[in-house]
Amino acid sequence: MSSRPDTDTLDELRTLTRAFAAERDWQQFHTPKNLAMALSVEVAELVENFQWLPTGAAEELDERKREGIRHELADVLLYLVQLADRTGVDLRAAALEKLRLNAQKYPVERVKGDARRYDEY
Amino acid sequence: MSSRPDTDTLDELRTLTRAFAAERDWQQFHTPKNLAMALSVEVAELVENFQWLPTGAAEELDERKREGIRHELADVLLYLVQLADRTGVDLRAAALEKLRLNAQKYPVERVKGDARRYDEY
Amino acid sequence: MSSRPDTDTLDELRTLTRAFAAERDWQQFHTPKNLAMALSVEVAELVENFQWLPTGAAEELDERKREGIRHELADVLLYLVQLADRTGVDLRAAALEKLRLNAQKYPVERVKGDARRYDEY
Amino acid sequence: MSSRPDTDTLDELRTLTRAFAAERDWQQFHTPKNLAMALSVEVAELVENFQWLPTGAAEELDERKREGIRHELADVLLYLVQLADRTGVDLRAAALEKLRLNAQKYPVERVKGDARRYDEY
Repeated sequence: MSSRPDTDTLDELRTLTRAFAAERDWQQFHTPKNLAMALSVEVAELVENFQWLPTGAAEELDERKREGIRHELADVLLYLVQLADRTGVDLRAAALEKLRLNAQKYPVERVKGDARRYDEY
Repeated sequence: MSSRPDTDTLDELRTLTRAFAAERDWQQFHTPKNLAMALSVEVAELVENFQWLPTGAAEELDERKREGIRHELADVLLYLVQLADRTGVDLRAAALEKLRLNAQKYPVERVKGDARRYDEY
Repeated sequence: MSSRPDTDTLDELRTLTRAFAAERDWQQFHTPKNLAMALSVEVAELVENFQWLPTGAAEELDERKREGIRHELADVLLYLVQLADRTGVDLRAAALEKLRLNAQKYPVERVKGDARRYDEY
Repeated sequence: MSSRPDTDTLDELRTLTRAFAAERDWQQFHTPKNLAMALSVEVAELVENFQWLPTGAAEELDERKREGIRHELADVLLYLVQLADRTGVDLRAAALEKLRLNAQKYPVERVKGDARRYDEY
């Protein structure tokens, strides 16, 4: 993220998405349930770009695909911010908490280089 | 997001997730394709919390569900940051660009209070 | 399903999808992993039809949406049959086995009218 | 599919899932919207089995994973049958219709060995 924004990006996007929905009177559709569904649809549109590729590495992507990926990543973030807003979750605090929990669940010495899930140990 | 962090949250999480994966030698598994799949799985775990509820509003959620939602929102953000990092996408710039495109696609005067998609007009 | 087909539908579709992929030399792309991703994308296209609707009941759907739902249900079934074929799973036997397991997991007397998941008891 | 059942499998499963839901008084939760969400969650549980594997081929799967895949494929089919039932879609007719449309959309001579989507031509 190049230059540092005046406001934290997650706060900025929360403000912008609130205004966007309010101007269109769309808050009525934005229940947490509906936003979660919309989020899952956007993620699938992102997945669609990768489904027949070997790994999705840069050399496998043309300009058209790169643009599609950028737009879908954006859509996912925008719905994520709105869903967190509607459920009263502080995304930054939640992510930092989850990183701490993950560090406990997957201690370096036990999982190094191994992708099996914790519950498979 | 309570107090303003020293670094923008998205940059901070990019740095932290990079270190987390590097310490565990997990970058080898983190192809864009695999991260997109993992992201879709986390979103489904989020969706699972809402699937049988009327709307997912606060009064429908108990403490256990609220915690689950917080953790899943965090997982989604963490994978999203990693996928953007691996595909070289600046999430903030992409989100601001997409909001501009959406504003053109869904002009206030045409869509107010109507959730039909643009392509259905 | 109107009149009874000569062959069981799941067998019939397995034969037809095998031929479809073979004629196009697409088996090379049809790894179980890729088919699972494609299946998830088709399901999201199905979900998209319902995301802003109250319940998705017949009276909420116009002809266009009904057709979209029919096509997406078909796509899901076609990928499902192909994924089962590639992983050597007998879908009918698997479904009957799972119904038996579900009947044990959710005994009538305990769950009647209650949508909470088993693990929440 | 070993021996041929007396009833077509899709009809059989429709009858069985109807009874299963009715006995538990669960039809009230089974709106098309909710079933579509549940279907997407089951597909993600299926995807989860493949997300860190190279291709998901048989030699990459242990017995535990094979069983998980079998159960998740079954869950997907069971929800698919219920969603088709609730939306009044004849799954067999829809799949055969979609195969015909796909054959027109992807003519053998044009797409042989090429996984790019139709809209990318």
